Amino acid sequence: MIKDLRNEISLKERQHYLDMALEYTRECRLLINSTVLSGLKVNFKTDGSLVTTADIEAEKLFRRRVEDTFPEFGVIGEEFGASNPNADFQWIIDPIDGSSEIANGMPLFGTIIGLHYKGQPLIGVIDHPAFNICCYGGYGLGTFCDGKRTMLVDFENDHFDGTERIGTATRSNFMRYGDDSHLFDKLVKAHPNVRIYFCCYIHTCAINGSLDATVEWNIRIWDIAATRVLVEEAGGKFELIRQTEQPGVGTVYCAVFGKPKLVADIVKILKDTPSSKIVV
Amino acid sequence: MIKDLRNEISLKERQHYLDMALEYTRECRLLINSTVLSGLKVNFKTDGSLVTTADIEAEKLFRRRVEDTFPEFGVIGEEFGASNPNADFQWIIDPIDGSSEIANGMPLFGTIIGLHYKGQPLIGVIDHPAFNICCYGGYGLGTFCDGKRTMLVDFENDHFDGTERIGTATRSNFMRYGDDSHLFDKLVKAHPNVRIYFCCYIHTCAINGSLDATVEWNIRIWDIAATRVLVEEAGGKFELIRQTEQPGVGTVYCAVFGKPKLVADIVKILKDTPSSKIVV
Repeated sequence: MIKDLRNEISLKERQHYLDMALEYTRECRLLINSTVLSGLKVNFKTDGSLVTTADIEAEKLFRRRVEDTFPEFGVIGEEFGASNPNADFQWIIDPIDGSSEIANGMPLFGTIIGLHYKGQPLIGVIDHPAFNICCYGGYGLGTFCDGKRTMLVDFENDHFDGTERIGTATRSNFMRYGDDSHLFDKLVKAHPNVRIYFCCYIHTCAINGSLDATVEWNIRIWDIAATRVLVEEAGGKFELIRQTEQPGVGTVYCAVFGKPKLVADIVKILKDTPSSKIVV
Repeated sequence: MIKDLRNEISLKERQHYLDMALEYTRECRLLINSTVLSGLKVNFKTDGSLVTTADIEAEKLFRRRVEDTFPEFGVIGEEFGASNPNADFQWIIDPIDGSSEIANGMPLFGTIIGLHYKGQPLIGVIDHPAFNICCYGGYGLGTFCDGKRTMLVDFENDHFDGTERIGTATRSNFMRYGDDSHLFDKLVKAHPNVRIYFCCYIHTCAINGSLDATVEWNIRIWDIAATRVLVEEAGGKFELIRQTEQPGVGTVYCAVFGKPKLVADIVKILKDTPSSKIVV
């Protein structure tokens, strides 16, 4: 068995990082809510995706706070790239996951904050400012949603009747780098009771058990920075389906997470599909 | 041109009905929120679907208020059926659209209230208690979301590149009465940037322009009671795709609504599909 490098960090130290992550989260939430109230400005990035003043200002705030408190740590953010990329500790932020949703007045968006140690997720927070919902936790510390410890209850058997509740990315996401649309089609045929939110609220729901499992496709490190540790500490399963390097983009991830028996079933469906790219 | 029967009702009278609908909505919202806070109880109906104490109590409150104020009007509700079915005026309520969502702790659910006159929608309200979002309006009165007049801006042309934002029902819904799953598949192939919320929040988003159009499949009168008047008064298009009688169930509706050019495109996609059942 491979030693989990995260045990090099004491529980007390992990709790301190979680406390700090929650402090940053609260500050970002206040800033995002006040930016929405005073009028969000929307711009387009070079890749055609949206960015708002709330994205920019929340990431700036986070980076300033981390640089003050942990100057030797790395920071990776969706809007301003990486600093200290060789540090063991990496703070990762997506200030607003779901920029197109917040820009369209939809409250499902969230802030994702993670702290990784030697490539392993140590601390995770997913916060939904407009919902007043926050999931947070850390390796060996448990997962909490709105202060309550969260434990997923797995299915009793591995036969599914189509009523199981799954979340997934849009079909567009499955076609972003090459055409994986056959995997979307196969997934929703096998598990038709599907939700599509286009932001990290499908992660939150797989973590707190509102959904039974979630499939994410072609997302970046800041989209997934908090999810694995939160799912695993809630007793769920996180499976990385694929990790590829996309030229001019960077590393792109596909993953399934949630209740273990359903995750295993979904992994089997995606593996059984002829595709040279699947790496599970 | 067929005379619109709704003109038999004066604007002043329509405004009075809308004011009353909003009063009922506020009372239902308070009751739903307090029921959630004090602990929701969940039961199963004979068809296997969920019902909560909030559904039951909100519909009881609504019926009591309507019977006091408009004793000669009909009432149709999801939980307690129809009373005064031959009256010209019919109040229609789905106290909680998205019972399985509220039961799973998800805030997307909504209360739908409509007033129909001789079968035509006169007044509509869709309220989201957990979001603090409310869309309301009436025939000739306009559509308002959170107090602001809502006007949809249509696409400039009818060529779509896949970035247009659509909402739809789950694939399960397309298979509820016979297998229409090919229509779901065809829809998400043509318009892959799809959201699936499993409740009336996809209606709200098509009404306020957060989504460009929404497709609903196999739903009941209380699910759709408010939508047509709200979409049309916002300058959108509402197309009924199919209306069938399901034995032991009642009338079931399939509809597309939102920005006119996109609605026309989606109707064409669904019409072009070989199916003897499509009635557009």
